[in-house]
Amino acid sequence: MAAEPKYLTGDKAALNEFIDKFDTFLFDCDGVLWSGDHVYEGVPETLHLLRSKGKRTVFVTNNSTKSRGEYAKKLNGVNIPSDVEDVFGSAYSSAVYISRILKLPVGKNKVFVIGEAGVEKELASEGVPFIGGTDENFRRDITPADFEGIADGSLLDPEVGVVLCGLDFHINYLKLAHGLHYLRRGAIFLATNIDSTLPLHHDLFLGAGSIMMPLANASGQKPLELGKPSQAMMDAIEGKFQLDRSRTCMIGDRLNTDIKFGVEGKLGGTLHVQTGVDKKKDWQKKDAIAVPSFYVDKLSDLRHAA
Amino acid sequence: MAAEPKYLTGDKAALNEFIDKFDTFLFDCDGVLWSGDHVYEGVPETLHLLRSKGKRTVFVTNNSTKSRGEYAKKLNGVNIPSDVEDVFGSAYSSAVYISRILKLPVGKNKVFVIGEAGVEKELASEGVPFIGGTDENFRRDITPADFEGIADGSLLDPEVGVVLCGLDFHINYLKLAHGLHYLRRGAIFLATNIDSTLPLHHDLFLGAGSIMMPLANASGQKPLELGKPSQAMMDAIEGKFQLDRSRTCMIGDRLNTDIKFGVEGKLGGTLHVQTGVDKKKDWQKKDAIAVPSFYVDKLSDLRHAA
Repeated sequence: MAAEPKYLTGDKAALNEFIDKFDTFLFDCDGVLWSGDHVYEGVPETLHLLRSKGKRTVFVTNNSTKSRGEYAKKLNGVNIPSDVEDVFGSAYSSAVYISRILKLPVGKNKVFVIGEAGVEKELASEGVPFIGGTDENFRRDITPADFEGIADGSLLDPEVGVVLCGLDFHINYLKLAHGLHYLRRGAIFLATNIDSTLPLHHDLFLGAGSIMMPLANASGQKPLELGKPSQAMMDAIEGKFQLDRSRTCMIGDRLNTDIKFGVEGKLGGTLHVQTGVDKKKDWQKKDAIAVPSFYVDKLSDLRHAA
Repeated sequence: MAAEPKYLTGDKAALNEFIDKFDTFLFDCDGVLWSGDHVYEGVPETLHLLRSKGKRTVFVTNNSTKSRGEYAKKLNGVNIPSDVEDVFGSAYSSAVYISRILKLPVGKNKVFVIGEAGVEKELASEGVPFIGGTDENFRRDITPADFEGIADGSLLDPEVGVVLCGLDFHINYLKLAHGLHYLRRGAIFLATNIDSTLPLHHDLFLGAGSIMMPLANASGQKPLELGKPSQAMMDAIEGKFQLDRSRTCMIGDRLNTDIKFGVEGKLGGTLHVQTGVDKKKDWQKKDAIAVPSFYVDKLSDLRHAA
């Protein structure tokens, strides 16, 4: 049994003890720092405080629609100075897995992408060839000729060895039909992440895990997922940042991704905020998927440390 | 334990005994009569034979993209003379359920449709108001203004009380986002059917059950399904055709829809054909979802009866 999570909001001594316990803080972004384009009040100041105390801050996001560079730009835009190296995203995690772990042979190493530009940029940065994605040729209605050409294979690229599915705001039947048929011909099924929802405008929209479901259901296959809570991502982060897990804390709003990611990664601690998808009542349930070691109402409550 | 299914192909005596056992044959269409636009050899002649023996033939389809009228047209076009009343589709079954069973109050009785014209036509035939569907306003990319207006509700129709999801070849994020938000506001979640795949061009594409999955996954809700194997559909067919279940046989290619539909409906028999999605090996498995009472290689094998 996990110990009862410690509530830090308003408790100055506990907040200081919490901050002293860690060298590195891994931050989820959507639902922690912001919701869509709305940055939560006091968040930049909180980051500044932690950095002023010598803490390393790493942004670990399952949002695959943006590349690390775009994320850094967004962080800078909201007064959290950052560069590409401060960001670790599920699109990057997926690209690294494909290029460095899968190492598919040339001629069978192309990726069929269901997703936005973020995935494409990270694949390109790792030198992985891909098709699909934001290509306008795939952003249209399916035609009778498509059905026929997909079924007989004449419209399929024989070099595709992977179907990588992320969040795609331009999802359509044509892309799904291509994805399904690559899977039926033996392509490896990967997902940037499996978040069912995406917090936006104080509400929830469909996440990558929901966009991927038609392929999983029609193919009968489950994708290997490369975002939180996948420990493939934790291993990659540890390797890249040379961090001491016992002195690292994962901060997030979702139990099934963020908190599970930190617990299974045996980090020194996990901090749950109440500004995103899951709330206190969710980890208080008997069958909670993961329980944090600390919780606050909102990230900026950390500012009340000395 | 179900008895071993009887193999009829090439066995004239057994074929005659089989045909004599029933007054009514319920036919699945895709995978039994045809695959997409390709009609299987000998199928029209088989239907003529059964009718010449005084058998009633009813076409029971989970394909919601076509209305009953369009199905009848397709049947006539392949030399199987039929009218609207010979067809019972999942779109019609859904419309009947909404209009006659749900009976939602005016002001909360509108249906948000994810699906094609077949669903719309059947809803209209039952006098059920609807939005979405084939409306061009929903066949476009989602915009930042859409996200905002969906989240704050200003773009949602307060009269929507049902989200009905069928097979939609124009599925997109905008429709899914609307569907999700109607569900989050309490709309009833219905699915025309849950076939995971759709047989076309001797291959499989994504079926209604796969198109519905993003909504189920993001909302955490399962739809009530109104196509085969739902017994709501069987009850409606029995009522409409006044049939004697013990003298009725369901003919189909899918175990989880057609055969299960007939077995759970306690029909006199079920006949499995090998020309569609599931094969003999699928019901031979220990954990088979349903086992037929008869099987043939293909529907036209019935012609070898006297």
